[in-house]
Formats: sequence, structure tokens, C-alpha cells
Amino acid sequence: MPDKPRINQRQAIARTRLFQVEALDITFANGTRVNYERLVTSGHGAVIVVPLRDPRTALLIREYAAGTERYELALPKGRMEAGETPEQAANREMMEEIGHAARRLTCLTDVSLAPGYMSHRTHMVLAEDLYPQRATGDEPEPIEVVPWPLDRLLELALRDDCTEARSIAALYMARDYLQQRNPA
Amino acid sequence: MPDKPRINQRQAIARTRLFQVEALDITFANGTRVNYERLVTSGHGAVIVVPLRDPRTALLIREYAAGTERYELALPKGRMEAGETPEQAANREMMEEIGHAARRLTCLTDVSLAPGYMSHRTHMVLAEDLYPQRATGDEPEPIEVVPWPLDRLLELALRDDCTEARSIAALYMARDYLQQRNPA
Repeated sequence: MPDKPRINQRQAIARTRLFQVEALDITFANGTRVNYERLVTSGHGAVIVVPLRDPRTALLIREYAAGTERYELALPKGRMEAGETPEQAANREMMEEIGHAARRLTCLTDVSLAPGYMSHRTHMVLAEDLYPQRATGDEPEPIEVVPWPLDRLLELALRDDCTEARSIAALYMARDYLQQRNPA
Repeated sequence: MPDKPRINQRQAIARTRLFQVEALDITFANGTRVNYERLVTSGHGAVIVVPLRDPRTALLIREYAAGTERYELALPKGRMEAGETPEQAANREMMEEIGHAARRLTCLTDVSLAPGYMSHRTHMVLAEDLYPQRATGDEPEPIEVVPWPLDRLLELALRDDCTEARSIAALYMARDYLQQRNPA
């Protein structure tokens, strides 16, 4: 691996309520100089949760997505609040979006969306041993909860209404993790 | 599923060379009115490729990522050019990034990054029957190619330097797809 590129200059070039764009002037180890733009994430990070109703079934939600302008089937997720651990944020998002909390929470890893031009990272949390517990979030309308069997992930990922790479990755990783933890 | 929300107004509120932010004023079927911001993708879409050196081994690349400011291990990918099909774009990106083209290209699906606030979609292409063929891209430095066995995906996804959700999702989907196409 070459030496890490040197960042000569970074400059904020646009900012809205949610987004901040930064321009980077970078010199690579071989002398090549490049200008990049990247989205800088504000806030305290994000979580995505794989809530298991039972060892073979995850709970998905169907929610309107303003980015793609349609209803999407995906895992519960959201921004972390100040002072929250990923596990606490996962439990809060589950209570708000699927009306359950979990007695067992495992942080598997954290993933990036587009490392080439976004700093964004999402903690991936596996939630087991669920119990009913509802909290009120900022959802604009009631959310439909959709159970999905872990042995039918390819079918899910090929559906037109299930497109989010983070959800697909998290479900596959959870299945793999469970199989390695409890070999048949 | 409720009726689709009504978009009352959309307004471009920031634009840089790469990014465009749009404000949306939306009314849900139950009357709730919300203001959202979303990133609008310009250009012709993007592709991510799972290049198979053999039926059990994918080829990854290690490349500097300006978003996370470090070297990341991930699948070849890039923006599509005007007039390209996903398969053509996949072949071009492979020639530029791993020095191979493929005789067999299969578009599996397309994925989103963050459907809640990005319109971005990426076509996911499986590439088989590779042969050496190099093209020059806009890479600032030579790219390291890293073969990875498909039966060790969880180990890969748990590594600190492999974080991209799209790559993890694409590798798992490719493995699942191959297993269903050619059952053991």
C-alpha cells in the first residue's frame, strides 16, 4: 500500500440543514495532485438494526423514502443522539419503528455508504430476545412491520422495493454471524 | 401501504461540481406535512462489479477513499458514461481498475445507498469468464488487486479496511446467486 495521500487544503463549499460539502486538494505519494469533493456527515453517527423475532426471522419496515420517492422495505435505522451508544440508539429506533426493544444487542461492525465521497458511517447492530415496548419517534405516518425469513435473502434483495445496500449487507452478515456462532 | 405522499414543492438549494441538494415539501396521506432535504444524483448512474477470477474467488481493489480519508478494500465501481449500458460500464471499470474484461456479464439488481435522503442508484453486475485487458482510467495511482474467497465473506466484512455496504451486499448476493444457479 502506498503512503497515505497528503491533504493540502480542505474547504467548506456548501452547507444546508442536513448536508455539508467539502473540497479537498490532495497529493498522492506519486506526486499526482487531485481535487475531490466529499459530503461531510454532521451529528453523532447512525445505526442500522437487524431485529430478530426468532433466530430465523428478521423484522423489516416499509417506509416512505424521500430520496428515491417511494416506499422502501428495509431495516430499522436512524441517527444517533448525543451521548447514545450504538446499542442504545438501536434500541430506541426499534421502539419507535417496530414497537419492540431487545434484551441482547451486539454491535457487529460499522459500514460506509460511498467511501470515495462520503464520510458517513453506520453502526450495524444485531438485536435478539425482543419484547414489546413502544416509543414515539418523529415518523410522519404509521410504519408497517414485515417479518422476513433469513433463508430467503436473495429473493428479498432482488425485489424492486428492497434496494438499500446497508440493509442487504446487514441481513447477510447477521445470517452468517448466527451460523458461525451456532453451527448446525 | 398508504397512498404515496404528495410533493407540494421541490427546490434546488445548493449545487457544487458533484452534489446537488433539493428541498422537498411533502404531504403524507394522513395530512402530515414535512420538509425533507435530499441529494440528487446527476449523471448517468453508477455500477459496482463482482469480478470472479474463478467460481470461488472475487477480485477486490484497494484504493484511497477521500470520503473516509483512508485506503479501502472494495469492489471495482464507478460512474456510467453517456450511452453505456450497465454491462458496458462494468467492463470498462474492470479494465481500468483490475486489468481484466469479462465474457459473461449479468446485471443482478440495482441498489440504493440511503433511500431516505439520496436518489443515488447503483447497478450491480456479476462478471465471469475474465480475460486480461487493460484500459487507462482516471486513477491517480496504481490500484492493488486483492483476490478474496467467497466462502470467507464475514471475515472480510468484519475487517476495519472493508466497510462499503454496497460491496458487502454485492459479494453476498453474488455468492447466493451462484449457489442457486449451480446447486451443489
